Amino acid sequence: MLKAAKELAEALGQDAVSFDEDVIEHHGHSEWSTSNTAVRPVAVVYPKSTNDVVTIAQMCNKYKVPIVPFGAGSSVEGNFSSPHSGICVDFSLMDQVIAFRPEDMDVTVQPGVNWVDLNNQIAASGLFLPLDPSPTAQIGGMVSTNCSGTNAMRYGTMKDWVVNLTVVLADGTIIKTRRRPRKTSAGYNLTSLFVGAEGTLGLVTEVTLKLAPIPEDTSVAIVSFPTIKEAATAASSIIRSGIQLAALELMDDLQMQIVNRHGSASVKKRKWLEEPTLFLKFSGTTDAIKSDIKRVSQLMKPHNPRDFIFAKTPLEKTSLWAARKEALFTMLNTRPPGTEIWSTDVAVPLSQLANLITLTKQDCSQLNLFASIIGHVGDANFHTAILYDPRDAEQTAAVGKVVKQMMRRALEMEGTVSGEHAIGIGKKEGLEEEVGGEVVDVMRRVKRAVDGKGIMNPGKVFDLS
Amino acid sequence: MLKAAKELAEALGQDAVSFDEDVIEHHGHSEWSTSNTAVRPVAVVYPKSTNDVVTIAQMCNKYKVPIVPFGAGSSVEGNFSSPHSGICVDFSLMDQVIAFRPEDMDVTVQPGVNWVDLNNQIAASGLFLPLDPSPTAQIGGMVSTNCSGTNAMRYGTMKDWVVNLTVVLADGTIIKTRRRPRKTSAGYNLTSLFVGAEGTLGLVTEVTLKLAPIPEDTSVAIVSFPTIKEAATAASSIIRSGIQLAALELMDDLQMQIVNRHGSASVKKRKWLEEPTLFLKFSGTTDAIKSDIKRVSQLMKPHNPRDFIFAKTPLEKTSLWAARKEALFTMLNTRPPGTEIWSTDVAVPLSQLANLITLTKQDCSQLNLFASIIGHVGDANFHTAILYDPRDAEQTAAVGKVVKQMMRRALEMEGTVSGEHAIGIGKKEGLEEEVGGEVVDVMRRVKRAVDGKGIMNPGKVFDLS
Repeated sequence: MLKAAKELAEALGQDAVSFDEDVIEHHGHSEWSTSNTAVRPVAVVYPKSTNDVVTIAQMCNKYKVPIVPFGAGSSVEGNFSSPHSGICVDFSLMDQVIAFRPEDMDVTVQPGVNWVDLNNQIAASGLFLPLDPSPTAQIGGMVSTNCSGTNAMRYGTMKDWVVNLTVVLADGTIIKTRRRPRKTSAGYNLTSLFVGAEGTLGLVTEVTLKLAPIPEDTSVAIVSFPTIKEAATAASSIIRSGIQLAALELMDDLQMQIVNRHGSASVKKRKWLEEPTLFLKFSGTTDAIKSDIKRVSQLMKPHNPRDFIFAKTPLEKTSLWAARKEALFTMLNTRPPGTEIWSTDVAVPLSQLANLITLTKQDCSQLNLFASIIGHVGDANFHTAILYDPRDAEQTAAVGKVVKQMMRRALEMEGTVSGEHAIGIGKKEGLEEEVGGEVVDVMRRVKRAVDGKGIMNPGKVFDLS
Repeated sequence: MLKAAKELAEALGQDAVSFDEDVIEHHGHSEWSTSNTAVRPVAVVYPKSTNDVVTIAQMCNKYKVPIVPFGAGSSVEGNFSSPHSGICVDFSLMDQVIAFRPEDMDVTVQPGVNWVDLNNQIAASGLFLPLDPSPTAQIGGMVSTNCSGTNAMRYGTMKDWVVNLTVVLADGTIIKTRRRPRKTSAGYNLTSLFVGAEGTLGLVTEVTLKLAPIPEDTSVAIVSFPTIKEAATAASSIIRSGIQLAALELMDDLQMQIVNRHGSASVKKRKWLEEPTLFLKFSGTTDAIKSDIKRVSQLMKPHNPRDFIFAKTPLEKTSLWAARKEALFTMLNTRPPGTEIWSTDVAVPLSQLANLITLTKQDCSQLNLFASIIGHVGDANFHTAILYDPRDAEQTAAVGKVVKQMMRRALEMEGTVSGEHAIGIGKKEGLEEEVGGEVVDVMRRVKRAVDGKGIMNPGKVFDLS
């Protein structure tokens, strides 16, 4: 492996390869993730172009060295850990917008582009990429995990916005999955096969993305309910009504406590009810939003809403939504020293959501730890965030058990063990339980067909043998 | 092959297998399609269950006999022809709705279910499957071709509505690609791999589909323009505005002539301008539609609209839209005896649409045949329909040349050779030209990985060697 790394330094230049211990540690371990391994990569390589990536693949293929792609490093299932060591490929220098075509409503970018930067850069055109994962996320990682976020209810997930991918395969072959049509039914959908494959089938070096028009107007409303069940039932009735919200989010009582105690200054000005709360984002024309708000307020009534607050000014809109957006960071900033956050998510059929959240909250309450729920209710997808001390083996095991139980229940309800975080190394068993050995075997056969030596991000999603 | 068919008749019952010449002809040749072969299947099998399909796959696998799936028979690229003979599997007896779950907004059906029947059956729930391909189409074929239709602008294509598939692989293994979450990022997206694979990777025996709420209200408007370019530019400005139409369709001057001359009684009551015409379908709340119509009418102004007619009554709405919906059947019913229709489609980036339509119309005009254009402008996807005499070899060759030229131009504009008809046998060369040999080779490797003997619908999408 070291030999391959050293030859790469010769081929790409010494400053393209780092053997620095701190750099390697940063690329081999994540405090965002609960699934780390003890093994580290031997080196970190920084390609500047698709051709550099070809050189890396060819070299690693020659020496049969694992290749582990690295984006922003904010994934949570050990997606960029290096259980078999190898060479970590950091895409941060491939951060260019290659072509922006407002007339086609698409853009071609390198994988190291941050999605918030991209949206800022193109905002004047009236277009945007309507995903909403962690603000740190880069396009490459977003593709590899098929990310989504609060906007998925209206706009779908990453796979729905990828027009084509340029991918370097394990042997260094460059392929481009498609040209640039908005719609196609020509041949196998390789684009959707590479999206969500977590770099186990190839290294994504260019991405063409569809863009959506920025809505004329948006607004935000919040409403609390006595119970999760009533909040979820109210949410269901909105989803069924066909009113097209941009987002429909749920925060539980504990999460609302955090908002009151530790929210940012503008958020804390309001005294929030510490009860299950729905956050609604409306988007469209100003007229349509007015009429949507009226309808939503009618639909809520039978479900005991405590309050229905909608933003009357742009400032209010921002401060209402900030309570939702700040949630993860507020938790991170206020956690006791030494604790980490165990963040996980599942998704189920719509009718099962309230039930699963209720059961999961019961399990969590027995931990005697801070454990809150944030849900993308519009997609019946929710997150649990548990603050725990990773040095405490017993505590860690107890949290692990609760998370496993939540996945098992999601499966019993015909759901999935991962709504938007992918599988990494953390949920491999869960995947096998979810789809069954025969389906994972089909995935294995596909993997072997394009990566015969098994060098692309090995040990992720599933094990080869 | 005959031996396999006879053993199947013993295994499944004599009435499950037909050797009747007329039946075989109906399953081996299509007058909808321009890509027929001389070879016919040896028999047609009618499975009643997933287990019957397993028996068929195991038998065909044992004798290495090609398996060709057959749905409604309305595909146009020879998708169900039998170039290598084999056994045709007709799914018409697998036409049951297995489970309808309005509370989850999904439904599980067998592949022989017709989508119009399905929507009628579930209409009272306020939900529907928002695709709009040929009214004859069945779910199995819709999955296999990744179909779409006029609603794709708002609702996307078939792949966006499939939650999971039960698939029988070449060796008889049954797999289910997913459970029933609305959203997932767990493992490879095998669902999207099987959607659009035209039965070359396995036989789909059950499909779970997402459903959408039926919009509170819809309305229709039509507007004509002096030129295709102005119509397409106007369409672009609407797409860019973010106004969410359900459909945005274009019919050219020739197609509008057909409407005037041969439309149904209610359509012909109106004297239509014989000019490029946009058909707009609005959907949403009644208030939102009113405001959308006002905005669209403003956006049209700079592009020389001749007229802007919007439906004022439900009856008017139906009769305006009927002109669009009848288009294909009107052509079929009024074509001169002996002629057939060459129906093809391509899709390109938005900004290229007007240019490609204009060039294609020029090519078509030199044929001295009836050749019209109908476009799903919202997706930059359009159809050409050419009436020709298949017994006239010279004429057929000339039409083939125009179609080829249209595909080549679409590719030069970074488009696709097939927007919604898939590849079949008719566009195999086009696919290779579109994505390149290395991408087709990845498709081949995936195919071999799951169908080692190459018995699943061989000779479609690409050739194995």
